[in-house]
Amino acid sequence: MPATSHYRPEDTRFQVDREALIARLMPLLPTEGLIVDEAGRRPYECDGLSAYRELPLVVALPETVEQVQAVLRACSEMDVPVVARGSGTSLSGGALPHPQGVLLSLGKFNRILEIDVARRTARVQPGVRNLAISEAAAPYSLYYAPDPSSQIACSIGGNVAENAGGVHCLKYGLTVHNVLEITVVTMEGELLTIGSQAPDAPGYDLLAAYIGSEGMLGVVVEAVVKLLPKPPITRALLAAFPTVEAAGGAVAGIIGAGIVPAGLELMDNPAIRAAEDFVHAGYPVEAAAILLVELDGHPLEVEEQLEKVIALLEAQGADEIRLARDDAERGRFWAGRKAAFPAVGRISPDYYCMDGTIPRKHLAYVLGRMNQMSEEYGLRVANVFHAGDGNLHPLILYDISRPGELQRTEEFGGKILELCVEVGGTITGEHGVGMEKINQMCVQFATPELEQFRAFKRAFDPQGLLNPGKHIPTLSRCAEFGGMHVHHGQLPHPELERF
Amino acid sequence: MPATSHYRPEDTRFQVDREALIARLMPLLPTEGLIVDEAGRRPYECDGLSAYRELPLVVALPETVEQVQAVLRACSEMDVPVVARGSGTSLSGGALPHPQGVLLSLGKFNRILEIDVARRTARVQPGVRNLAISEAAAPYSLYYAPDPSSQIACSIGGNVAENAGGVHCLKYGLTVHNVLEITVVTMEGELLTIGSQAPDAPGYDLLAAYIGSEGMLGVVVEAVVKLLPKPPITRALLAAFPTVEAAGGAVAGIIGAGIVPAGLELMDNPAIRAAEDFVHAGYPVEAAAILLVELDGHPLEVEEQLEKVIALLEAQGADEIRLARDDAERGRFWAGRKAAFPAVGRISPDYYCMDGTIPRKHLAYVLGRMNQMSEEYGLRVANVFHAGDGNLHPLILYDISRPGELQRTEEFGGKILELCVEVGGTITGEHGVGMEKINQMCVQFATPELEQFRAFKRAFDPQGLLNPGKHIPTLSRCAEFGGMHVHHGQLPHPELERF
Repeated sequence: MPATSHYRPEDTRFQVDREALIARLMPLLPTEGLIVDEAGRRPYECDGLSAYRELPLVVALPETVEQVQAVLRACSEMDVPVVARGSGTSLSGGALPHPQGVLLSLGKFNRILEIDVARRTARVQPGVRNLAISEAAAPYSLYYAPDPSSQIACSIGGNVAENAGGVHCLKYGLTVHNVLEITVVTMEGELLTIGSQAPDAPGYDLLAAYIGSEGMLGVVVEAVVKLLPKPPITRALLAAFPTVEAAGGAVAGIIGAGIVPAGLELMDNPAIRAAEDFVHAGYPVEAAAILLVELDGHPLEVEEQLEKVIALLEAQGADEIRLARDDAERGRFWAGRKAAFPAVGRISPDYYCMDGTIPRKHLAYVLGRMNQMSEEYGLRVANVFHAGDGNLHPLILYDISRPGELQRTEEFGGKILELCVEVGGTITGEHGVGMEKINQMCVQFATPELEQFRAFKRAFDPQGLLNPGKHIPTLSRCAEFGGMHVHHGQLPHPELERF
Repeated sequence: MPATSHYRPEDTRFQVDREALIARLMPLLPTEGLIVDEAGRRPYECDGLSAYRELPLVVALPETVEQVQAVLRACSEMDVPVVARGSGTSLSGGALPHPQGVLLSLGKFNRILEIDVARRTARVQPGVRNLAISEAAAPYSLYYAPDPSSQIACSIGGNVAENAGGVHCLKYGLTVHNVLEITVVTMEGELLTIGSQAPDAPGYDLLAAYIGSEGMLGVVVEAVVKLLPKPPITRALLAAFPTVEAAGGAVAGIIGAGIVPAGLELMDNPAIRAAEDFVHAGYPVEAAAILLVELDGHPLEVEEQLEKVIALLEAQGADEIRLARDDAERGRFWAGRKAAFPAVGRISPDYYCMDGTIPRKHLAYVLGRMNQMSEEYGLRVANVFHAGDGNLHPLILYDISRPGELQRTEEFGGKILELCVEVGGTITGEHGVGMEKINQMCVQFATPELEQFRAFKRAFDPQGLLNPGKHIPTLSRCAEFGGMHVHHGQLPHPELERF
């Protein structure tokens, strides 16, 4: 796939002397802690959004908090952009390097520092993999709830940066609901504790604002996360439907009945076929849509809910309802869903995973409009959907080797996000804005709200050095995107403004 | 009670021309919407922390969002401080007026705009009383969970400002966990929507930072709150213990067993006696401590938990365990607890309600140290305790007519808060910092953290006009409080700095 830069050559916001930077950083880092050669930097040029690529000036691999502080202090003094990176699984380009900046990898911060069984917390370094926390807590029958599909690989620092979700976040919440306290380093190298293990803490509660801030405010060097007791029982159902609308109706029925499943996922036929071909989960490949419903909790309550859910699925015209007989079958049900993205990758040279949220009641309308657009753009779409909370993941299938197809795909993706806003939803469910959705932020928010975000950013990073160009668009970027005509040259070029 | 000002006469941060202010505001407000005479302003001179009193320059009573915007814009242009007020039930002086400022009452914003049964939300104006939301939602078997003891009177705008809790917040969370979206007016008069009804919203999540920000960032003019289905069954237990330690042990046992009661409250003997004398709840007046335990949820699960809890209470040496036979008796159990503050008011000319949080395991140590201090200061203390989440409410009994007793009480209260910090807790559980705990913020936080809070405040209110002097201490206030010696006169007087 050819490298596509989303930073512009005329970007003159940062004027970095690379040799001086290397000389300054080298003594601050351990041996082999600064990667300067091109071959060494190449693996860091993109994250999970691989259509966007950029080589960083250097890659720093600190091993201690003091080294992170020293690197950030040096970059602040030298006016050098910094992009922090965990495992690089972001799907919105959150860890895309800046061509004039330092790529700061937290890969060596990979230790679980403490499991406190009585308080049900884990204190971890940011490079720890999401799943590793649950593995370490398993002997105490505890686990960490958020489970993004990339949980084998993605790191908790990245989860904090993107406010990661997962198939169980309907019941157990996003990262923001499962992290109690973080320790961060500011761009000036100060160490701050944000959040608290007490129920309410004095001062401004900046933790939620920090979680999902996409690396724009500081670098997380430690996190205290909540651990939950494993539910006494977990049951999973798979239901096949003749239409996507019927599956959507079943979702509305379940939620309307006051049942909060641990997971409630919808896949359409192209996604079902791709997943089945890949992992042989036993999915009914003729179905227009399937719903996966997981219920957990007290055995008696789960049994009652199961009866109700089965009745609701039948009432909505499910062709087939399967109850997983054991944990192995339940695992297979989920394996298909969790592998949906790579599965789609097998049936198309390239795919573009979108992420938007809509009020559930507009599901049928949005799917209809997407089908129309799919025909207009001549691009196929497979849909995977966190149905319980209205979070859509349309996967647009394309072939980058066909001239213009990537651009058409990006345009189609943008239109899907704008459709989400049109029906009262949002342009991201759990993947973040990053570089990918920066223009749609101008659709989502009004000018005073964006200006408030920029003021907030300046309060943490007055030089605008952390992850520049992402998450919050500059005023002139929105002007350009919206086709606004600006007279008297008052607005600089979008890539020339820092906020 | 004599008026005690906590603003200093030498405060020259604001130079307000009162006549010009009146002339400017009068045309912006409805008839009788601007109170200028002293008798009319007098009822606004204090909130629930009545030891602190201050007459505002004027009181504004807007009736529309546009009027709120106009008043704030005018005050911004004239550099006039503004203190917003809901029902005035703050226990930390959050709504204490500024002597050079406008007291902005939201009392006329008292409408419930919408109950959305399908989404389980209510859209309300800020002056709506907390309990009124649950009353309006009751026909749909829904309710609003946070229930501060003042819920008959306190307003949702004030609940947002202080991140109010209540006896059920152990299971159902604080205000921050039960509000989805707010509409606010900035000091410059801009209207912003903060938060989202979607699971994850793009942009910085400023909602949690706004909730509990104590009127320092803007004025809430509308809120969308979550409604919960009423639990199918609720049972309450009262257990009497021969020692406070045994009651504390029972709390640890219940939480340790993985049971999350809807409420878990501890009262010591002075609090029990005062409450019993007042509301005749049937409390055992000889007990050293009582625990109130409420369990709710699925009937079968509640029955199972009840058995476990009773066994745990017996194992910790409870002298008596009573299960409320019906909702009427359950109501009486809670009536004593909810009336504990006014009940203590009947046995002492004055009382000072403290609010701190400690890790539960330090309960016995903290109560012991408080008893010691009680003797040293010659002041009695009654304890009411949200035991499940470690939130202490010691009530210091005093008599303001005795010279020096108020000062001694404030000093004792400050020492209790510092003790909370010493054991790893915080200086507030749910009442906020306000004017009351401003000095202890210097104990709770390090300088870089306070500086981050100040930068955050400046991002919303660059002139420092919203509720000045509260919540976040200035650098020089901490220097003064800590007895720090500052040379070369670099630090101005605490009351002369805006941040």
